[in-house]
Amino acid sequence: MKKKETLSIVKIGGNIVDNPEALKAFLYDFHRLEGRKMLVHGGGVMASKMASQLGIETKMVQGRRITDEETLKLVTMVYAGWINKNIVASLQQIGCNSIGLSGADANTIPSVRRSPEPIDFGFVGDPNPEKINATFLSQLIESNITPVFCAITHDGHGSLLNTNADTIAYSVATALSNQYDTSLYYCFEKKGVLRDLNDSKSLIPSMTRAECEKYKQQGIIADGMIPKLDNSFRAIENGVSRVIILHAKNLLKQQGTVLL
Amino acid sequence: MKKKETLSIVKIGGNIVDNPEALKAFLYDFHRLEGRKMLVHGGGVMASKMASQLGIETKMVQGRRITDEETLKLVTMVYAGWINKNIVASLQQIGCNSIGLSGADANTIPSVRRSPEPIDFGFVGDPNPEKINATFLSQLIESNITPVFCAITHDGHGSLLNTNADTIAYSVATALSNQYDTSLYYCFEKKGVLRDLNDSKSLIPSMTRAECEKYKQQGIIADGMIPKLDNSFRAIENGVSRVIILHAKNLLKQQGTVLL
Repeated sequence: MKKKETLSIVKIGGNIVDNPEALKAFLYDFHRLEGRKMLVHGGGVMASKMASQLGIETKMVQGRRITDEETLKLVTMVYAGWINKNIVASLQQIGCNSIGLSGADANTIPSVRRSPEPIDFGFVGDPNPEKINATFLSQLIESNITPVFCAITHDGHGSLLNTNADTIAYSVATALSNQYDTSLYYCFEKKGVLRDLNDSKSLIPSMTRAECEKYKQQGIIADGMIPKLDNSFRAIENGVSRVIILHAKNLLKQQGTVLL
Repeated sequence: MKKKETLSIVKIGGNIVDNPEALKAFLYDFHRLEGRKMLVHGGGVMASKMASQLGIETKMVQGRRITDEETLKLVTMVYAGWINKNIVASLQQIGCNSIGLSGADANTIPSVRRSPEPIDFGFVGDPNPEKINATFLSQLIESNITPVFCAITHDGHGSLLNTNADTIAYSVATALSNQYDTSLYYCFEKKGVLRDLNDSKSLIPSMTRAECEKYKQQGIIADGMIPKLDNSFRAIENGVSRVIILHAKNLLKQQGTVLL
């Protein structure tokens, strides 16, 4: 059997996007990563700042933004406009040919608007990994063009949808794992999954699903880490080779929590 | 000699982009246009509205926006974010597979920042038609994916640049005219070039460059129409088959001023 080519899908969050120096250092490392690659970025911190500049109230439920019409406009401007195009221009500068995409572009990520029950999140959608336009994405990758996704998708009925960036990374990684030996990197502000949030030396270097469930029961894993890990293990079950949760500055060292 | 395939490049301005009903009707007509196609859109009206919402002063010189850092952020958000992604989502809805692009994406339109002499326009650039990534654009077109350009390009050194949408349309049309039998449509709020701006029946149905110069001397052609016509005749000199200046609602009828 022919060995599959490697593909790295890296997700970065709003904190790094909002820090020009950290972003620059990260993009440089990302460019040096070997093999085919793809970037997915958030931007919540900048969206919240722009919301307050425009006098739009930020409403969060369970860590997720309630997206009314005004907020959809705001996040589309910030994520798909300002952040996405600046990342692309910065990557072009260092010689990484890239293309900025929302899920509407080339119908790459068709999504379904989330049911208004039990909580109405507004214009928020969840991608269907089976409907992702993997053919187009692999055409880009094979042409040495690095896709850069913002966290905006569409419903196919004319509406854009605010979409969790972790979920986009998971969905795209899953869809491309038939074709590539795919690694998924979730970069965030900690070194990985920690036993004790206040002790950066308490890193859990690797974790199986069974171990993860045990940590959840013990309360070691809680809050925002739960959906991130659920996405990660689902990715592995659906063909992604490995998921690493790590600090952006450790991307090239690949040091963090490896999920097996 | 093998006959070239036809390609229509249609430019729409800020007025139609800002009118949801007119935009919807236009996109439907655009989708029905036969052959390969590409869209270029402005968005100045919405940018000015958003500027006043954010308390950013709009400074225009010779009909062009002075683009300081704050204004660059604003136009990138509005053009590349809100307007571009909404047009793409609307085209997807009616079955036209499209992709939204800035000139930074896949390095499609490398530009040069305009000299600060005699007027410093700030982060404003002019594309070099010879450096346009025609290979990538024709790959998209041949895959039945319609490119939708906003009026943002980049300098290759990490900076985005605000760029005149008419000039983008001219540059892309010129770059693709080697490969395609290319028509360029400039849609605006009048039926075409008028002898008398107050009389919609005074349409000039066709015009050569020599006739255009005569009209300029007579003062029949003035102001914003001059750069539009200069771009148009330059496009024809550089291989574009025809340029039509017309009202968006007459796109399918192709009624307007034809430049020869």
